[in-house]
Amino acid sequence: MASTEGSKLWGGRFVGDTDPIMEKFNASIAYDQRMWDADIRGSKAYVKALERAKLVSTDEMEQILHGMDQISDEWSRGVFVIKPGDEDIHTANERRLKELIGAPAGKLHTGRSRNDQVVTDMRLWLRSAISTLTDNALQLITTMVERAAAEIEVLFPGYTHMQRAQPIRWSHWILSHAVALSRDVERLQELKKRVNVLPLGSGAIAGTPFDIDRELLQRELGFDSISVNSMDATGQRDFVAEFLFWASLCLTHLSKMAEDLILYSTKEFSFIKLSDAYSTGSSLMPQKKNADSLELIRSKAGRAFGRVRLKGFGFNAVCLHMSVSFFQCTNNLINQTVMEAALSPDMLATDLAYYLVRKGVPFREAHGLSGKAVFTAESKNIALNQLTVEDLTGISPLFGSDVSSVWDYRSSVEQYSAPGGTAKSSVAAQVEHLRNWLKKHAQ
Amino acid sequence: MASTEGSKLWGGRFVGDTDPIMEKFNASIAYDQRMWDADIRGSKAYVKALERAKLVSTDEMEQILHGMDQISDEWSRGVFVIKPGDEDIHTANERRLKELIGAPAGKLHTGRSRNDQVVTDMRLWLRSAISTLTDNALQLITTMVERAAAEIEVLFPGYTHMQRAQPIRWSHWILSHAVALSRDVERLQELKKRVNVLPLGSGAIAGTPFDIDRELLQRELGFDSISVNSMDATGQRDFVAEFLFWASLCLTHLSKMAEDLILYSTKEFSFIKLSDAYSTGSSLMPQKKNADSLELIRSKAGRAFGRVRLKGFGFNAVCLHMSVSFFQCTNNLINQTVMEAALSPDMLATDLAYYLVRKGVPFREAHGLSGKAVFTAESKNIALNQLTVEDLTGISPLFGSDVSSVWDYRSSVEQYSAPGGTAKSSVAAQVEHLRNWLKKHAQ
Amino acid sequence: MASTEGSKLWGGRFVGDTDPIMEKFNASIAYDQRMWDADIRGSKAYVKALERAKLVSTDEMEQILHGMDQISDEWSRGVFVIKPGDEDIHTANERRLKELIGAPAGKLHTGRSRNDQVVTDMRLWLRSAISTLTDNALQLITTMVERAAAEIEVLFPGYTHMQRAQPIRWSHWILSHAVALSRDVERLQELKKRVNVLPLGSGAIAGTPFDIDRELLQRELGFDSISVNSMDATGQRDFVAEFLFWASLCLTHLSKMAEDLILYSTKEFSFIKLSDAYSTGSSLMPQKKNADSLELIRSKAGRAFGRVRLKGFGFNAVCLHMSVSFFQCTNNLINQTVMEAALSPDMLATDLAYYLVRKGVPFREAHGLSGKAVFTAESKNIALNQLTVEDLTGISPLFGSDVSSVWDYRSSVEQYSAPGGTAKSSVAAQVEHLRNWLKKHAQ
Amino acid sequence: MASTEGSKLWGGRFVGDTDPIMEKFNASIAYDQRMWDADIRGSKAYVKALERAKLVSTDEMEQILHGMDQISDEWSRGVFVIKPGDEDIHTANERRLKELIGAPAGKLHTGRSRNDQVVTDMRLWLRSAISTLTDNALQLITTMVERAAAEIEVLFPGYTHMQRAQPIRWSHWILSHAVALSRDVERLQELKKRVNVLPLGSGAIAGTPFDIDRELLQRELGFDSISVNSMDATGQRDFVAEFLFWASLCLTHLSKMAEDLILYSTKEFSFIKLSDAYSTGSSLMPQKKNADSLELIRSKAGRAFGRVRLKGFGFNAVCLHMSVSFFQCTNNLINQTVMEAALSPDMLATDLAYYLVRKGVPFREAHGLSGKAVFTAESKNIALNQLTVEDLTGISPLFGSDVSSVWDYRSSVEQYSAPGGTAKSSVAAQVEHLRNWLKKHAQ
Repeated sequence: MASTEGSKLWGGRFVGDTDPIMEKFNASIAYDQRMWDADIRGSKAYVKALERAKLVSTDEMEQILHGMDQISDEWSRGVFVIKPGDEDIHTANERRLKELIGAPAGKLHTGRSRNDQVVTDMRLWLRSAISTLTDNALQLITTMVERAAAEIEVLFPGYTHMQRAQPIRWSHWILSHAVALSRDVERLQELKKRVNVLPLGSGAIAGTPFDIDRELLQRELGFDSISVNSMDATGQRDFVAEFLFWASLCLTHLSKMAEDLILYSTKEFSFIKLSDAYSTGSSLMPQKKNADSLELIRSKAGRAFGRVRLKGFGFNAVCLHMSVSFFQCTNNLINQTVMEAALSPDMLATDLAYYLVRKGVPFREAHGLSGKAVFTAESKNIALNQLTVEDLTGISPLFGSDVSSVWDYRSSVEQYSAPGGTAKSSVAAQVEHLRNWLKKHAQ
Repeated sequence: MASTEGSKLWGGRFVGDTDPIMEKFNASIAYDQRMWDADIRGSKAYVKALERAKLVSTDEMEQILHGMDQISDEWSRGVFVIKPGDEDIHTANERRLKELIGAPAGKLHTGRSRNDQVVTDMRLWLRSAISTLTDNALQLITTMVERAAAEIEVLFPGYTHMQRAQPIRWSHWILSHAVALSRDVERLQELKKRVNVLPLGSGAIAGTPFDIDRELLQRELGFDSISVNSMDATGQRDFVAEFLFWASLCLTHLSKMAEDLILYSTKEFSFIKLSDAYSTGSSLMPQKKNADSLELIRSKAGRAFGRVRLKGFGFNAVCLHMSVSFFQCTNNLINQTVMEAALSPDMLATDLAYYLVRKGVPFREAHGLSGKAVFTAESKNIALNQLTVEDLTGISPLFGSDVSSVWDYRSSVEQYSAPGGTAKSSVAAQVEHLRNWLKKHAQ
Repeated sequence: MASTEGSKLWGGRFVGDTDPIMEKFNASIAYDQRMWDADIRGSKAYVKALERAKLVSTDEMEQILHGMDQISDEWSRGVFVIKPGDEDIHTANERRLKELIGAPAGKLHTGRSRNDQVVTDMRLWLRSAISTLTDNALQLITTMVERAAAEIEVLFPGYTHMQRAQPIRWSHWILSHAVALSRDVERLQELKKRVNVLPLGSGAIAGTPFDIDRELLQRELGFDSISVNSMDATGQRDFVAEFLFWASLCLTHLSKMAEDLILYSTKEFSFIKLSDAYSTGSSLMPQKKNADSLELIRSKAGRAFGRVRLKGFGFNAVCLHMSVSFFQCTNNLINQTVMEAALSPDMLATDLAYYLVRKGVPFREAHGLSGKAVFTAESKNIALNQLTVEDLTGISPLFGSDVSSVWDYRSSVEQYSAPGGTAKSSVAAQVEHLRNWLKKHAQ
Repeated sequence: MASTEGSKLWGGRFVGDTDPIMEKFNASIAYDQRMWDADIRGSKAYVKALERAKLVSTDEMEQILHGMDQISDEWSRGVFVIKPGDEDIHTANERRLKELIGAPAGKLHTGRSRNDQVVTDMRLWLRSAISTLTDNALQLITTMVERAAAEIEVLFPGYTHMQRAQPIRWSHWILSHAVALSRDVERLQELKKRVNVLPLGSGAIAGTPFDIDRELLQRELGFDSISVNSMDATGQRDFVAEFLFWASLCLTHLSKMAEDLILYSTKEFSFIKLSDAYSTGSSLMPQKKNADSLELIRSKAGRAFGRVRLKGFGFNAVCLHMSVSFFQCTNNLINQTVMEAALSPDMLATDLAYYLVRKGVPFREAHGLSGKAVFTAESKNIALNQLTVEDLTGISPLFGSDVSSVWDYRSSVEQYSAPGGTAKSSVAAQVEHLRNWLKKHAQ
């Protein structure tokens, strides 16, 4: 005979028990219990629509709302007990409701499918996660922008391919990462629109056959819009894919930044000294102090995709938080002396070429002549700025004694004053730009 | 001695030749030559900024512009000759310019880095690809919406987990996919803003030291905005990652749709008959007609990420185009008779439960009672609607002779008239919604 | 002042506390506690080597061994208490050891790094997982082979591209999957060699400076060999990557099989009827019975890579187990009548071509002529075997009345008697081959 | 009317033309033409089996063999002309055969499916690729082992987490990578068995109905074994997945090595000076010399999976080749002076702890005391070895004047003489081990 009274929501036509391994494998309660609040809010809104449609009485609605509040309270206080057979958060909450209020609980699911619930809960939960992440990201950008403002005088080597390229401001480096994060915030605010859509009222695939007022549901739950097609609403998870991509891209940005900072904190670079609070040691080597906070940020990127969907949020939130702490806490730990000592004359070879360009030499030719100067200095085993005027005029007669003006790092940097450049005025303008952007994007 | 006259753009300080394997491995010309037009447009704008900054004379500018037009003409006519040593499209075009106009060509690269060029070219190229893809996607949505309008009377089984779930309209299925694609168009239009940003004038990492007018470059090249930080501008490729994710998500949508259509075109389902133009045969089995067009669409999803970046565009464009053809060409090839014959009474079990709900039974109980009816019919090896009223009242006394009204597929479907449902009025409203959306999003 | 007495294993040189977020983020105890047994076994072996090297006294060794046995007992009985600060299983066990036996616990880590421990534990744990998986896979292959033997008489359509291709034996289909799984077992047995290598005694990166007898460790822990280079031993995880690839490939095989079975269990195919024990229902639609066990198997493939490393094992073990149950439990639930009724004359078009080949027509031409026959039958809207001899001789004069012999599915199948084919003798030979293989590969 | 004379191999039953976009999208000739030789060898073997089975006459066989040799000659000389309609290499070769020898060409495909051909070609092609890669990898290991032998006296800092950990031999670092590559060779030789299996004679899915002698085919084509089941043989590509994983893992090993070398070649580390032949410059900055060969190796890892399947081979072959060149060419370019100068006393903190362990202090306590010494030295801003005996006895009374023996890098390294360690004798033993391994694994 078919079972009629199992705790499963779908057991009427089934004979015999589910294989226990199958049951365990299929259960999602371990993952989805974090959505208890979203689930309860969704059900509370839905019972109001049921009452409006005369599918529950006002009294039954009140009982359900009250029961749901009790369940919410149990979750808040950490005393909700998950029982065997609670395959997911929806089953668990409805089972508990029945224990608390009896028969009327059986009316709550009228016209609603589990998929309806799953998707509604995910959207509510994700909307809240997006709000938290936006806050974290804005706080990080703020911290970075203010450090860039405070340390605007510090120069250090800009690298490409891990080789010294040109002298830049330390703030220029900070802002390059802040700008990337500002795009992440913009992306997050855009995708939020696509997350914040009401699916409830879509049934399994065909829609709802009762007079469920979807606009009431939208208002109750604070959604921006209502889903257009019921099959799409229950079957698509593209909003999750879009969020996970976002999480992955944002982690990539944090990871790239962490990678540079790890390099700068090696003994060989010594640009940064990490606070003990963000380092760990070795169980074997007493002297070790590893940049573990940065390493963790670096390694998390690219992982978001492969993980159970809701974890993506957690990684990001923690990495953003740790990055904020990093920029707040190491305030006085960059080593300006070492950073500026790492600037070397060969990094001005481009300026040497520009010196010739300003005297009318086509750039391609000037590049070749400056390259020759680099080669000559290397052959003589001296620094580029130690070449004599004679050495240089041997390479091009246009070199004169005024070439000495090239060898000043601070004035080299000041040349890059076009928008986006590393001159003090340009960097200050970037700081202002981001301060304004922050005002505009504050939640 | 250092080489001075190699065709490489960076050879001044180098001694001896590059290892030929290394050279081949490093070359990107095979991939990036498709960006020839973007590269030429970027250079033409740049030389105007150089002239404004007095780094080339007006006459030199004219020569360069004229030379670039000649090169453009060579590419258009397919007669441009790539030479050994042309490591990328930028080198190739500049090498050719030098052959055509001589010395002034050497001034074009003043203050510009190759990264400047690469990123500018990619952004121009991608902007144009986005425009094409938007057109293709809009055309596909239009075709689907009009088919949905034309075939609104056709019912067929809606499936979940590949098992028959509820009767729905064929148009409801079509629109569920069209709605997903409409979100893809919205995403594409949003990310376009982040693609259409001028990087040129960022140099290697520090910016440009000359008086390059970046607003002039922006206007000349039709960019929406100017990059904020030069390190970010030359070092970040997040706009590419974002596009590739888009391509992957859109292909996933097309793939999901193709997967259903392949199933519907099996002999066992026989809902759809594929045109020969979109099928292929077997070299061994003379009777075979495979849905290869659909299989190709299905299989391309998920590949976009792993491919050389610019191919992502090609896949998408072709898949969108083939999907358009599919919906245009199979116009009269769905088999309505077979589709409606596939509806079976067990698909109305939910309606049977709702029958009881309308008589006051809580849904959970009604679900169980309907499940019992399904089980009884299966045990008797008869269809659900062949149960007698006696059979049914044995399950619940609330069943009466009016239960016969449940067994009508068309009136079942008409119940789902809430927004997003599968009733004729709801589907027609979706068609209208998308027609309006199309007007609003036409390029 | 530097902290001296923290519970961390590395705190001597550190000042102040670790940021709590950092601590939580860094902890792995939630994941690695499953390796408690491996960790204890590793430590017990190590202390024996320490005693041999005179780094602990015999009495200290006995205390440590005894303490470890107590800890093992606590874990077995589920009463081990993880405390705040237990960042990983190694710290937890050593902390507990100190509580139990005091000072001598501090000697256990002499000359050993945490990495030494981590890698040793992982290898021991993975070796045991491999053994379980091999058992599961062998049991599955056995079950499949015996079903293939039992159901060797059943014919059904073989599909390519989801279109009917040629008549084959159902057992031929089963064995095609069993053969793939047999390669997985071979791969697993090969990679086991690379997993079962002793790393202990490698220190951080330089090796161990004490007289640690690595051959003693190897014997105690049952490893096949000893790692060659200490940096490689502590830094490489390629054995994990190799195992995860294995897990992913094996799941792909199970997934492919599940995908076919899901299709065969649709109403439209109806080849298979799923037991209730391996299905689930719908919370909304009372009639639904979804092939959830198969869907879970299908969906797990491709996930193994992205997961926390040790979970890969769990997925596989469960999927293999569920597959065994599937083939054991549905013993009498394939529907031979439906399966053979699904064979259709067009599936013999290849045989029709071969009929002509046997009369001397080159295959390419014969293929074209058989294709013409298919086209003619379709045009007349009749089955291929309903073409008259006149119809056929119109296509080729070589057709005669003996063509009727082509239209027998069972004799068609019997033609394929070369090794690997679908004739009864060939399938029986495959069964024998696998039975022998199973004997050879039993653990 | 159905087309009878198209160049397609499957056109008999098809009406009208294929959509040109579809045709282009479906064609694989651009990718698979590299398998021309494998395709011809497969066909030559197959025609011999046809002759044995009396499906072609001896004369027809001779014509086909001769024609195939002509085609092979055309491909070798680069004069084979691909025509529109040649959708893949199989079609192209058979089309050409028909042009050359006429009617008998139509018999070649008797009883063979295209899938038969595709899989046979892939297996032949891959077998040959595996042979090349094994050679390349063995050559790389040989080169590395001999460099390790030659430079065994050089010490430098071993790093973990990019922080200085312990003094090690440079050769120890080299060998750690050589050992990982030796496992790759073992994996490759194991998977070769699973690649080198004859699928030919499997037909579409059911097998071959003619008297095709599969053992003859095996001998002719040099396969190790014959496929067991025809569905598995034509439908499975797990041998490709396994190879691609191998390619990816091997590239990961090369990438990890390249990453270290890039770091060691930065100005800040300066352990290695790159030859010009393996570097590239900048189009803007005349002084730049980027480690592009190493960067390319580093970046290719992880890409193999996402690429068109046969490219995986190319990447690997080039990366292995470039790695060989690197170790051959930079023979005299490591800077021993800089490397040894980078060793610092704090790297001996573990040895300082061991000093106490040898005096009976439990390691945990000794680790804490050594950590205190590190902290004291840092507080005083002096090197660890500059602490006075008084400083040290303040930390532990067990410190004595013999502590000075700790501060010798070379004797520190010599302690690590257990198997796998960094002592000279241990490293020399590793060299010997790998030399023997190389003898055993030479092809």
